[in-house]
Amino acid sequence: MAVHTEARKDRACLIVHGPDKPGIVAAVAALVTRNQGNIVTLDQYSTDPTGGDFFQRVEFIRPDLAVAMPEIEGDLAATLGPLGMQWTLTDLSVPKRMAIMASTSDHCLLELLWRHRRGELPVTIPMVISNHTNTAEDVRSFGIPFFHVPSAGPDKTAAEEEILRLLAGNVDFVVLARYMQIISADFLDRVGVPLINIHHSFLPAFIGAAPYRKAKERGVKLIGATAHYVTKDLDEGPIIEQDVARATHAHTAADLQARGAYVERAVLSRAVQWHAEDRVIRHGNQTIVF
Amino acid sequence: MAVHTEARKDRACLIVHGPDKPGIVAAVAALVTRNQGNIVTLDQYSTDPTGGDFFQRVEFIRPDLAVAMPEIEGDLAATLGPLGMQWTLTDLSVPKRMAIMASTSDHCLLELLWRHRRGELPVTIPMVISNHTNTAEDVRSFGIPFFHVPSAGPDKTAAEEEILRLLAGNVDFVVLARYMQIISADFLDRVGVPLINIHHSFLPAFIGAAPYRKAKERGVKLIGATAHYVTKDLDEGPIIEQDVARATHAHTAADLQARGAYVERAVLSRAVQWHAEDRVIRHGNQTIVF
Amino acid sequence: MAVHTEARKDRACLIVHGPDKPGIVAAVAALVTRNQGNIVTLDQYSTDPTGGDFFQRVEFIRPDLAVAMPEIEGDLAATLGPLGMQWTLTDLSVPKRMAIMASTSDHCLLELLWRHRRGELPVTIPMVISNHTNTAEDVRSFGIPFFHVPSAGPDKTAAEEEILRLLAGNVDFVVLARYMQIISADFLDRVGVPLINIHHSFLPAFIGAAPYRKAKERGVKLIGATAHYVTKDLDEGPIIEQDVARATHAHTAADLQARGAYVERAVLSRAVQWHAEDRVIRHGNQTIVF
Amino acid sequence: MAVHTEARKDRACLIVHGPDKPGIVAAVAALVTRNQGNIVTLDQYSTDPTGGDFFQRVEFIRPDLAVAMPEIEGDLAATLGPLGMQWTLTDLSVPKRMAIMASTSDHCLLELLWRHRRGELPVTIPMVISNHTNTAEDVRSFGIPFFHVPSAGPDKTAAEEEILRLLAGNVDFVVLARYMQIISADFLDRVGVPLINIHHSFLPAFIGAAPYRKAKERGVKLIGATAHYVTKDLDEGPIIEQDVARATHAHTAADLQARGAYVERAVLSRAVQWHAEDRVIRHGNQTIVF
Repeated sequence: MAVHTEARKDRACLIVHGPDKPGIVAAVAALVTRNQGNIVTLDQYSTDPTGGDFFQRVEFIRPDLAVAMPEIEGDLAATLGPLGMQWTLTDLSVPKRMAIMASTSDHCLLELLWRHRRGELPVTIPMVISNHTNTAEDVRSFGIPFFHVPSAGPDKTAAEEEILRLLAGNVDFVVLARYMQIISADFLDRVGVPLINIHHSFLPAFIGAAPYRKAKERGVKLIGATAHYVTKDLDEGPIIEQDVARATHAHTAADLQARGAYVERAVLSRAVQWHAEDRVIRHGNQTIVF
Repeated sequence: MAVHTEARKDRACLIVHGPDKPGIVAAVAALVTRNQGNIVTLDQYSTDPTGGDFFQRVEFIRPDLAVAMPEIEGDLAATLGPLGMQWTLTDLSVPKRMAIMASTSDHCLLELLWRHRRGELPVTIPMVISNHTNTAEDVRSFGIPFFHVPSAGPDKTAAEEEILRLLAGNVDFVVLARYMQIISADFLDRVGVPLINIHHSFLPAFIGAAPYRKAKERGVKLIGATAHYVTKDLDEGPIIEQDVARATHAHTAADLQARGAYVERAVLSRAVQWHAEDRVIRHGNQTIVF
Repeated sequence: MAVHTEARKDRACLIVHGPDKPGIVAAVAALVTRNQGNIVTLDQYSTDPTGGDFFQRVEFIRPDLAVAMPEIEGDLAATLGPLGMQWTLTDLSVPKRMAIMASTSDHCLLELLWRHRRGELPVTIPMVISNHTNTAEDVRSFGIPFFHVPSAGPDKTAAEEEILRLLAGNVDFVVLARYMQIISADFLDRVGVPLINIHHSFLPAFIGAAPYRKAKERGVKLIGATAHYVTKDLDEGPIIEQDVARATHAHTAADLQARGAYVERAVLSRAVQWHAEDRVIRHGNQTIVF
Repeated sequence: MAVHTEARKDRACLIVHGPDKPGIVAAVAALVTRNQGNIVTLDQYSTDPTGGDFFQRVEFIRPDLAVAMPEIEGDLAATLGPLGMQWTLTDLSVPKRMAIMASTSDHCLLELLWRHRRGELPVTIPMVISNHTNTAEDVRSFGIPFFHVPSAGPDKTAAEEEILRLLAGNVDFVVLARYMQIISADFLDRVGVPLINIHHSFLPAFIGAAPYRKAKERGVKLIGATAHYVTKDLDEGPIIEQDVARATHAHTAADLQARGAYVERAVLSRAVQWHAEDRVIRHGNQTIVF
């Protein structure tokens, strides 16, 4: 569900994960209650009730949440630490700061800006970075800063350094909205925040370049798109969301690309929304989406 | 998820609902823990965290569940009673007993029998009742008793009496798998178990008879089916599941009916499975599906 | 398939309809060939091969089409007239002129403007008319004129007169992109071009106002949208396209409305594209979509 | 559209393909007309209107079709031969003879038998061949012969020889309904009829064995199935149809397999129906589906 800003006041999100064992749910629920929280939603998943990994997401309302956060954090450490669990406590009234990186294609970029303007994405957008300038005017018409960082030549080091300087300390996550440059392992080591990418294909099929041409050549009857976290293994990061659209023999590769654009923007938008709402937990090369 | 019989041993399902207030989740979780249960899944929903209605479904594993049930029931009464909550505790290793009522169409009936044989529906099927005989041989080939109760003339009283005698004490719910007779209010008053119906239309559009002809005449581009609980208001009961399929100008009403049959059997099967797994909670004229 | 402007040069669209009889396909195909046309696509449908209504859409390429049009028109009259058929011949390189009427909601409006800018809609947009001003800046940033025609009071006559003056002679069809004013029968009599509306519901369910609230109250599991031609019978015009999205108990009416917005813009865009490409033929209260 | 047997009387299907050139449509339409045929449906596709490959499917009604077939064949040779086109003329009132090969899984097999019994598949089923016996009773209850051909040991030569003897002269195409044996190149060389396979995955992802386990490991959010013609390149034959279902983190590999079964039977059924109705044309490693 979309949670609008006004509705997020005093609302906390607690993510808990670790080895499953009896009593965890009770311990977390009791902790929330004794800290004067009222649970709004609660989702959980265990890879195996006996000896598996346990994941839980709890949203609760607690008057004067900002003031109470340190105390709740202390209680979490005292309660969950001995159980070997890990946790993250977030104040949902503080929107995440999202940077968007794009190239010439505007469909994913504009979709995110437009959903943000409608109040549907609980984020701020401190910047859009592109290696092209064609979308600058559109971006700025949304009141959002646009930075042009060209990707000159095969050595992307200078460009990546500049992007890292722009992002440093300013963002909580980055969305690659059809950013058509390879991200180096060094960049990923240093950026310090998660990156979400939209792959214009139904992964793991048609990895790499020109997926719509490959899809046409293989004669598939469905085309798809995949939103995933970026890891050093290109196209291999944890998948957040996927969807498809029908294709027929009559579609050219260009037709597939045009139709695919609509799948891409929808899939990326859902993935971004879920990430912004703290609904996605990474688990090895997979995701739990609550 | 399908829960196979062997996996349901010592597994309980607890449904709780009532006025939302802080501490309920903690109270339920603590109750499960102190009764040596290990929570496997937990779903909850509140119509409004402040003063709304609260609904929760908890599946937990408890060794020797059958023996412990009375004690857990006692604890529930002591714990939830004072909070004004209602609850149902079910031993999931005991399959529900499902009767199917059908007429000449076999697609919904056979789908249920076939899924049951595959071990996907956690039910027993003590009987199939039909006002026709054409499916008798098929039903019996699945090892299931078939009873023919003709619907002679406009007065259905005698037929309904016979059906009530067959069902009495033998079933936990009834599925109308394209049973083409009106169910009387008196029957509903006396049957004492829930009835699930499949309506061959996307309710609330095209209520009543001949929905595919009406859909063709209206020129719709999608046809649908709706599974719902039966109430005295024909076609107005709480909806459990719906789905659609595309329609074009080239489809005749007969084509729509043939395509619709595939939507009907899928929608009804999902609704039956969810009901059998205690995932559906009625709430006025709506359902909560966990 | 999207047909891009450059690809539409010398491309004609011939729509033929009338009583089905043997030899029509051959007569049309021979006519195209003897006028030096090369058929690119051909679709046809008959309500009944014996005595039904026949519909055909032929796209063909003919060098110097603009020059040849009068001659082909003459041949059509000589060939199809005696067979009792009706026809329309269109030069697809001439984009249709589309006006958009909107109110405060911008999702359908912006989607059309953006698809148009991407070159996916083969239309020109001479104007956007709104009874509000909030979208003026956005519309003009696309280089498209925006006219504000307020709907003051219950008597809409003056406003409709002004709209008719703006449209007269300037447009080939009008799209109501969430235009929240009732269109009078007098307006429809005089406007002289087709109007396409997006209804924020799965017609014929939830006709009229507040469909998302009604959908929530009825507890449906799918919400939908319907694009249709406007007739004097409100919400009863021929349906061009429909689609749905899943709904759950956890969605509020506001959530359904937010999700519905994405279905609406997709459904309306497809309907507009098909109309612009001459793929939709009205047939009584239904449509043939090729 | 499903075409029921009675509706197929005197109905012919003409498939034409070859180099696209102006006048082909007119030539075919004129041929049908002068042979007293009335065109019911006509579909066509060209990879490129200038110099591409042309494909056309025409269904027409011709009184006393069986008697007229040789004469129409002669006309086709005289008309299309000089144009370098290839063609196939089929009497649609003669159902194709379809053999089904299966192993232990029954979901695809039973779905085909049941659709056939409903009169939805325009085929006869002279035999079901399996390397297991568990489905024998079910198959025979549909009145269809069941042949058990065990696959003993690594050398499949003897088994394939026996299958070839059973099929020889008796069938027009073969459906592999989850037949879990590798088909040898020699078998394909000698069988002389097309084979349709259902691959329990969204090809080209997860080719080979255990696709549901691979899908679970990769953490995909959609699972799929693919029906394709069998070629010597395993899993690489021309795709006829594909579809998907949603998957979540909560699904086990077994859950995915259970859900996948429903996608498989639907995808295979559509592919078989289209093939039986002569709607699928192979074109290199792709298919045209009209």
